[in-house]
Amino acid sequence: MEITLESPLDMHLHLRDGDMLKLVAPLSADFAGAVIMPNLVPPVTEPGAMVAYSERIREAMGADCEFDRYMTLFFTALTEQQLVLAQETPGFFGLKLYPAGITTNSEGGVSNLAEAESTLKLMEEMGIPLLVHGESHGFVMDREAEFLSVYRNLARKFPKLRLCMEHITTAAALELLDEFENLCATVTLQHLIITLDDVAGGALKPHLFCKPIAKRPGDRDALLQAAINGHPRLMFGSDSAPHPRCKKEACGCAAGVFTAPLALPKLAEIFAQHGALDKLQGFVSGNACRIHGLKPHAKRVTLHDVPMSVPSLYADYGQQVVPMYAGEEISWSVKA
Amino acid sequence: MEITLESPLDMHLHLRDGDMLKLVAPLSADFAGAVIMPNLVPPVTEPGAMVAYSERIREAMGADCEFDRYMTLFFTALTEQQLVLAQETPGFFGLKLYPAGITTNSEGGVSNLAEAESTLKLMEEMGIPLLVHGESHGFVMDREAEFLSVYRNLARKFPKLRLCMEHITTAAALELLDEFENLCATVTLQHLIITLDDVAGGALKPHLFCKPIAKRPGDRDALLQAAINGHPRLMFGSDSAPHPRCKKEACGCAAGVFTAPLALPKLAEIFAQHGALDKLQGFVSGNACRIHGLKPHAKRVTLHDVPMSVPSLYADYGQQVVPMYAGEEISWSVKA
Repeated sequence: MEITLESPLDMHLHLRDGDMLKLVAPLSADFAGAVIMPNLVPPVTEPGAMVAYSERIREAMGADCEFDRYMTLFFTALTEQQLVLAQETPGFFGLKLYPAGITTNSEGGVSNLAEAESTLKLMEEMGIPLLVHGESHGFVMDREAEFLSVYRNLARKFPKLRLCMEHITTAAALELLDEFENLCATVTLQHLIITLDDVAGGALKPHLFCKPIAKRPGDRDALLQAAINGHPRLMFGSDSAPHPRCKKEACGCAAGVFTAPLALPKLAEIFAQHGALDKLQGFVSGNACRIHGLKPHAKRVTLHDVPMSVPSLYADYGQQVVPMYAGEEISWSVKA
Repeated sequence: MEITLESPLDMHLHLRDGDMLKLVAPLSADFAGAVIMPNLVPPVTEPGAMVAYSERIREAMGADCEFDRYMTLFFTALTEQQLVLAQETPGFFGLKLYPAGITTNSEGGVSNLAEAESTLKLMEEMGIPLLVHGESHGFVMDREAEFLSVYRNLARKFPKLRLCMEHITTAAALELLDEFENLCATVTLQHLIITLDDVAGGALKPHLFCKPIAKRPGDRDALLQAAINGHPRLMFGSDSAPHPRCKKEACGCAAGVFTAPLALPKLAEIFAQHGALDKLQGFVSGNACRIHGLKPHAKRVTLHDVPMSVPSLYADYGQQVVPMYAGEEISWSVKA
C-alpha cells in the first residue's frame, strides 16, 4: 500500500534557533512547508526579526531544500501601520497569541485580552489569521475547556476573523469548532494517539509531556475520529517542539514532544489502520490550503507500508533530541 | 509555638531493602513506629520472610533506636492455618492487598478478588485488618474513584472486617469513608498539599509523581479539611517511597514521593497554619491506636516553629534519594 501526498504542510512547528535549529530544521524536510512559531528568546515580535529568522531557517534547511516558511509574529497589540508592514513582509502568515506564561517562552504574552481587541478588529478587516494557544491558568486538565469561552467570545465578536485554535486536545474544543464557521483548529500527532495515561499512568514519560497536556481517552478518541472522518476545518499541526535531552530527562522537564521526522509516516499508519488514507491529503494540506488560501510549492511525498525504525536520538551540532517512538518501529515510511 | 506528640506513627511506609533500607530507615526515627509495606522483590508473603525483614529493619534503624515495626504480608489467598501462623508471629499487623500490576513491585497482586473472599472472611473473623491499594486499571485520574465500588462491596459483604483504604486521594473516597463504620483510611503528606498541577501543570516534576497520582484541587482541599478537622477514621500514612535518584530523574520515572524525614515538621506547619495543632495527635497516632488497638512504645517528639532546611539529597551506602521540598525550608522542625 502507498499514498502520495501533494505538498504536505505542518501548520504548527517549533524550529527553535541556533544549533537546535540546525539540528531539527532538516528533519521537517518531508513537508512542503510549515507555519513557524515565534516563541524564541526574545520572541519574534516584528517583521525585521521575522525575516531574519526565516532566513536562518532557510540556511538551516540546506541549500537544496525548498521549504515554504509561513512565518508568524508573537502577538502584541499592533497598530494598523504595524499590521500593514507585517502583511507586506514576504513570508508573513499571521499572529500567534499566547496567554502570558502559559507555555515555553511565553512570558511576554497577553495578560488582558481586552487590550488586544483593536488589533483583532484590524486583523479581521485585513484578513490576517489569529493563531491562539488556548489555555487558561486553571487546573491543568481543565485549561483548554476553560478557555473555550474566550474562543466563543472572539468568534462572536469578530465573525470574519480567521481564528485558529492551536493544538486542540479535547472533545469540547471540537464541539466548539462545529459551532462557528470562522473557527478552525490544528491538532498534533500525539493528541490523536496518547492520553494522560501514556504520560503519567505507568512510569512518568517526560518525552510525552507537552502543553496542552494529553487528556482523557474520550478526548483522544474524538480528535482521532474528527481527523480520520475528514473534518474540513481540522488541520495537522505537529507542534513538534524539540528540547535538549538534558532538559527533558531531568527534574523540571520542559513541555514538548518532538515528532517532526516521523509525523507523516505515523499519520499514514494511523489513517491506513482506520481505512481513511483518502482523508490524509485534506488533513495534512488540503484543509489548510482552502482555509488560509495557501499555495505551497509543488512537492510530492510518497508513503508506503514499509517499516521505519525511529532513531533513539537525533544528535548534531552539540544538540541531542529524543523523538516520540524513540527506538521503536513505525509500520509506514517515506518512500525514497 | 510548639507541640509535643505522643508516639507518632506512620501508618504506611516503604523502607525497601538492602542499601536503600540502610539509608532510609533511620530517617523515620522521629516516629515511634510504622506500618511497613511488603512490596519487596520478591514480595513478603509469609511469616518467615516477614520476621527476617523486620530484623533487617531493626538493624538498619540502629541499635539505639526503638521503633515499632508493624509488619504486613503481601496479600495472597491464605488458609486459616496460614492466617493463624501469621497472627501468632510477633510484629504481624495485617495484609496488604494490591491489584496486580497497579504500582511498584505489585506484579504478583490480586487479579480476581472473588478468589480472595474466603481469606477475607477468615480475616474478618480473626480481626486481621486488610490494607488495600485501591485503584482500578482505568484512566489514571479515575482509578481511585472506579475502585470505590470494590471498597463498598467489601465493606457490605464483610461488615466486621477492618478495611483500610490506603493513601486516599479523592473527595469521593472521603464520602465513602463516611458511609461505612468499618472503613478507615490513610492519607499521605503530599496529597494534603499538591494536585496534578504541581506534578505536570508547569514543568514536569518527577519527585512529586506517585501512585495514586495527585488529583484535582477540590480533592486536595477535601483531604486537608478532613485531616485538620480531626476526622476520626483518617490516619497519617506517609507512603514515603524512596527510589534511587537516577530512577526518578530519568525517562520512565518510578512512582513515589520521599517524605519520611520531613513529614512531621511539615504536618505541624500545615496544622498550625490552619489553627488545628490540637488535631495533630489524633491524626498521627490517636486514631490509629484507637482503630487498630495499637499500643506503641512511649516516645515523645516535640515540634516547634523553628525552620528546618530540607537537604537537597539524602545519600549514603551508595544510594541517593531526593526528598520532597529538597533544598527548601519548612517553617517547623523537630526540637532536639
